[in-house]
Amino acid sequence: MADIPARTELKVTTGPIRGSRKIHVGERRVAMREIALEPSSGEPPVRVYDTSGPYSDPEVRIDIMAGLPELRRDWIRGRGDVEEVAQREVRPEDNGQLGPDRSGGVQPFPNVRRKVLRAKPGMNVSQMHYARRGIVTPEMEYVAERENLGRARLAEYIRDGEDFGASIPDYVTPEFVRDEVARGRAIIPNNINHPESEPMAIGRNFLVKINANIGNSAVASDVASEVDKMVWSIRWGADTVMDLSTGRNIHDTREWIIRNSPVPIGTVPIYQALEKVGGIAEDLTWEIFRDTLIEQAEQGVDYFTIHAGVRLPYIPMTAKRVTGIVSRGGSIMAKWCLAHHKESFLYERFDEITEIMKAYDIAYSLGDGLRPGSNADANDEAQFAELYTLGELTKKAWAQDVQVMIEGPGHVPMHKIKANMDKQLEACGEAPFYTLGPLTTDIAPGYDHITSAIGAAMIGWFGTAMLCYVTPKEHLGLPDRDDVKVGVVTYKLAAHAADLAKGHPAAKVRDDALSRARFEFRWRDQFNLALDPETAEQYHDQTLPAEGAKTAHFCSMCGPKFCSMKITQEVRDFAAKQNAGAETFIAAEPVVDADAGMAEMSEVFREKGGEIYLPAAE
Amino acid sequence: MADIPARTELKVTTGPIRGSRKIHVGERRVAMREIALEPSSGEPPVRVYDTSGPYSDPEVRIDIMAGLPELRRDWIRGRGDVEEVAQREVRPEDNGQLGPDRSGGVQPFPNVRRKVLRAKPGMNVSQMHYARRGIVTPEMEYVAERENLGRARLAEYIRDGEDFGASIPDYVTPEFVRDEVARGRAIIPNNINHPESEPMAIGRNFLVKINANIGNSAVASDVASEVDKMVWSIRWGADTVMDLSTGRNIHDTREWIIRNSPVPIGTVPIYQALEKVGGIAEDLTWEIFRDTLIEQAEQGVDYFTIHAGVRLPYIPMTAKRVTGIVSRGGSIMAKWCLAHHKESFLYERFDEITEIMKAYDIAYSLGDGLRPGSNADANDEAQFAELYTLGELTKKAWAQDVQVMIEGPGHVPMHKIKANMDKQLEACGEAPFYTLGPLTTDIAPGYDHITSAIGAAMIGWFGTAMLCYVTPKEHLGLPDRDDVKVGVVTYKLAAHAADLAKGHPAAKVRDDALSRARFEFRWRDQFNLALDPETAEQYHDQTLPAEGAKTAHFCSMCGPKFCSMKITQEVRDFAAKQNAGAETFIAAEPVVDADAGMAEMSEVFREKGGEIYLPAAE
Repeated sequence: MADIPARTELKVTTGPIRGSRKIHVGERRVAMREIALEPSSGEPPVRVYDTSGPYSDPEVRIDIMAGLPELRRDWIRGRGDVEEVAQREVRPEDNGQLGPDRSGGVQPFPNVRRKVLRAKPGMNVSQMHYARRGIVTPEMEYVAERENLGRARLAEYIRDGEDFGASIPDYVTPEFVRDEVARGRAIIPNNINHPESEPMAIGRNFLVKINANIGNSAVASDVASEVDKMVWSIRWGADTVMDLSTGRNIHDTREWIIRNSPVPIGTVPIYQALEKVGGIAEDLTWEIFRDTLIEQAEQGVDYFTIHAGVRLPYIPMTAKRVTGIVSRGGSIMAKWCLAHHKESFLYERFDEITEIMKAYDIAYSLGDGLRPGSNADANDEAQFAELYTLGELTKKAWAQDVQVMIEGPGHVPMHKIKANMDKQLEACGEAPFYTLGPLTTDIAPGYDHITSAIGAAMIGWFGTAMLCYVTPKEHLGLPDRDDVKVGVVTYKLAAHAADLAKGHPAAKVRDDALSRARFEFRWRDQFNLALDPETAEQYHDQTLPAEGAKTAHFCSMCGPKFCSMKITQEVRDFAAKQNAGAETFIAAEPVVDADAGMAEMSEVFREKGGEIYLPAAE
Repeated sequence: MADIPARTELKVTTGPIRGSRKIHVGERRVAMREIALEPSSGEPPVRVYDTSGPYSDPEVRIDIMAGLPELRRDWIRGRGDVEEVAQREVRPEDNGQLGPDRSGGVQPFPNVRRKVLRAKPGMNVSQMHYARRGIVTPEMEYVAERENLGRARLAEYIRDGEDFGASIPDYVTPEFVRDEVARGRAIIPNNINHPESEPMAIGRNFLVKINANIGNSAVASDVASEVDKMVWSIRWGADTVMDLSTGRNIHDTREWIIRNSPVPIGTVPIYQALEKVGGIAEDLTWEIFRDTLIEQAEQGVDYFTIHAGVRLPYIPMTAKRVTGIVSRGGSIMAKWCLAHHKESFLYERFDEITEIMKAYDIAYSLGDGLRPGSNADANDEAQFAELYTLGELTKKAWAQDVQVMIEGPGHVPMHKIKANMDKQLEACGEAPFYTLGPLTTDIAPGYDHITSAIGAAMIGWFGTAMLCYVTPKEHLGLPDRDDVKVGVVTYKLAAHAADLAKGHPAAKVRDDALSRARFEFRWRDQFNLALDPETAEQYHDQTLPAEGAKTAHFCSMCGPKFCSMKITQEVRDFAAKQNAGAETFIAAEPVVDADAGMAEMSEVFREKGGEIYLPAAE
């Protein structure tokens, strides 16, 4: 590897995530993490969903220069419907090299495949196609096992939630996955040229997923930091990653990312197409766009954002807006449409695009080019006109058995969020919704991971299948490594809050384990069960750094003498000393009528002596 | 001041908040801030609600040793219903000095009043009492002016929101404030011994407020840092501050805080009472508690958290809980009740407590001692049994014209939040609800400002009047200055998101001004209009530090060549060049039927040539 310049020497974070170990479950060896609790707890380890890939597995030797092992290689080839073809030759313009290269360039990925896969002529290799023919694929089996996490303990729980008409099963079978994919309610984005990916599903009846955006821009960043951001974001929980690179070196940067990514990678192909025409939107053509789709399809991009819903007649609807068109893809297409006085070629060529998608099993992420960039513009006619068009396009894609999700929100105040979800379900036949935030107020730049986590948790609860993260740098700058982590963890907690509220059968296993650890002052268990163990421990140590404080039965908020949890424990102990059967207390109705209730209960209490903290017989 | 040891030399942040200047509006000279926009905007300055007090006014000389000027002195004395009495003498145990002082002590506030105010015998000095007699006080006038912020521009806006049955007026009159206070739907917490405070209202039909908790503990912190935290938290938007100090020096710390606070100060008197009995809950007596109330009333505490709803019969209901009783006050009272096998003296002596409250105009914050400490315990019988008791006590307080708010949530998953609000409205006769968070998942210690901002924004929308902040250190340690700021800004944005969703008439003025600034690349306006201008600018500068970048018409996310906002502007410019009347485009219905619509609109577009970005005549 001596020929790799130092500047592309990629350093990524590897090793176990604190307090957990990698396990592989079931016939498909589905990767999960298991968090062991202190022996004093008497509790079994907690299994958690794991997006971090081989990077957190100490058994795996990571070689960024070689890329990840091809987990799905045999599954893909075993179906007999793909052929190897020579890869489209990489051209200078694929990396934005239209003139002399002032960027210094990016070292090409050393292990590029020269042969790539595509469907044999007349074949369709999409998971939806298999599903509709009744086939359960290994990918579906993998997803089922992965989603079932924690459901083994379901017997302990009464399901409790409001799912707004979703159909979340108690237990996920491969057949359930197949049926959801077949009817378009879930997608498994996994390009046959990205065999490194670990299958995952995006759908309203599965766990809510999150996406992290990375990507270089014309102004800053390089391939090393982008690959690191990918590895870093999946370490903290990103279920998919979008490479939104613009500027130069797009092709090579993407190759590095895909070859090293265990999660699906999404892109917005129009960004690269625009670079190929020197940034002049009017100069875009169907041929250049089509060629870009093939280029990216062969590299292994798992889903494409296609802004085919930005139609010519909708553009004037944005004239009254406070913030016009804020989607980059949307504004490019708007400019093209106006310049040519023509309907969008993405809209007109939609079926041809679908032909390409099905030859690689790329999923559509139908872009919301007219999403609102401010609360003032939320739920306006432009946004909804586009949404209904996306619904129409969904049906066209489904006609060719191509998987689809729909992009949504942006800036939407709380009272308008549910309308978005409900309209999407209606307009798009329950195709998975994939939303940015939404941001619920515009006045907190620097805190938009939070303004949007509020909206994201809500829309996730209402039925959105995947939440696109927002970092603290939104509107202000490019996220660095810390921002990526904060964005991912914030969205992970929002997605989890949504799972809890939907009544997802397994979601509360982790909450309850952590709450018990908290109540019993098992500090290490509390840290390890946290979404971000490192930050939790660091915050604890800022006030009480001593190692002893981690086993102390108090914390810095109240100190050793004055602690409510300690007092509760004393109350329990006190009660346990008294022994008289008094299930009456447990079974007692809430005493709402104060005087009567008080007298009665108080007397019973005194009579019985207070057997109160033993679990009731019920 | 040579006798003040260096360690209590209090440094607090003063000076204007970036990009704004202090103004005083109306006859009552209500403090607000005004943010001037760049001349190019052609827009008037934006007025914002200001909690920062004289500290952000460069005209005022701040002397922490002397305390703030007594804004309300003449209003209070002018009513002729108060008398001066000698202050209860400070005893060693008021500062927790039960034995030799190992703490080093805290320098007493140098400017302690020796005479304090209380109602003349038989008089009631509560704002509710005045309101019910039809009197509009200067405090009510102040509140009305303060809340009206921005409503002058209301004519530009169509009100839009879902307020779940609230009664938010277009314009707030002093009479409206009086009527809301009279019927108990709002409170103005302002102890007659805290004349330094700037009146503010807490109620469902006013702007949603936030509270910041500060306070030393037995483990850490000192008076200097606590006063600084108070000043710091109001600088970023805290509407009230609770001093939750425990351990030693409680009395003196509180004196420093109150004398320097322009916002209402709340406390939990049982904390101090417990210190007076050496931390042994069983040793608490009504006499010690009563004496503590007087002590704090005379100092000027504006609202007391009283956990009078933790009744003996409810304690067994917590036996089945995952996290038992997590409220400190709740657990103290639970322990006392069990130890004595007696009903809570707070409950039994409630009318006597009310007698004290009305002699100083202290508001009740009826404590939720049985709030859930984990999602597993949310909305259980213990929580709601207590809530209904708080409703019963509300009516008892109102019978003596004493102001009341009700404390609520804790950890509550999203689908159970609305039930809390609805039950509170029903049980407590619309007395203002004041909730901690709620935290919508338990698995993100280190990020609980965010897990709780989700719940806080939602419950604020549903009708909660004040949100108690949660910092990133929740469950882990004591918040430092940075944590306080993050907590306050996070809650400010949650409260604002709630105001927007409720359809508060003036809320969106600031959002829209910021969105316009964003769209027009007025970076400085965007920073200045932000809740936290410093962080916004700092994040921007991390990617594009040059001064020129602040006037650049692009940002680091996309770079100079590739920017959606820039493209939108080009689209507008492009359109403006074409001139043909085509209101048809503006008035056009969303084209949902694709083929027909496309053909039709596209043709019209070509015919007319595209006059699209001029505002329609409508």
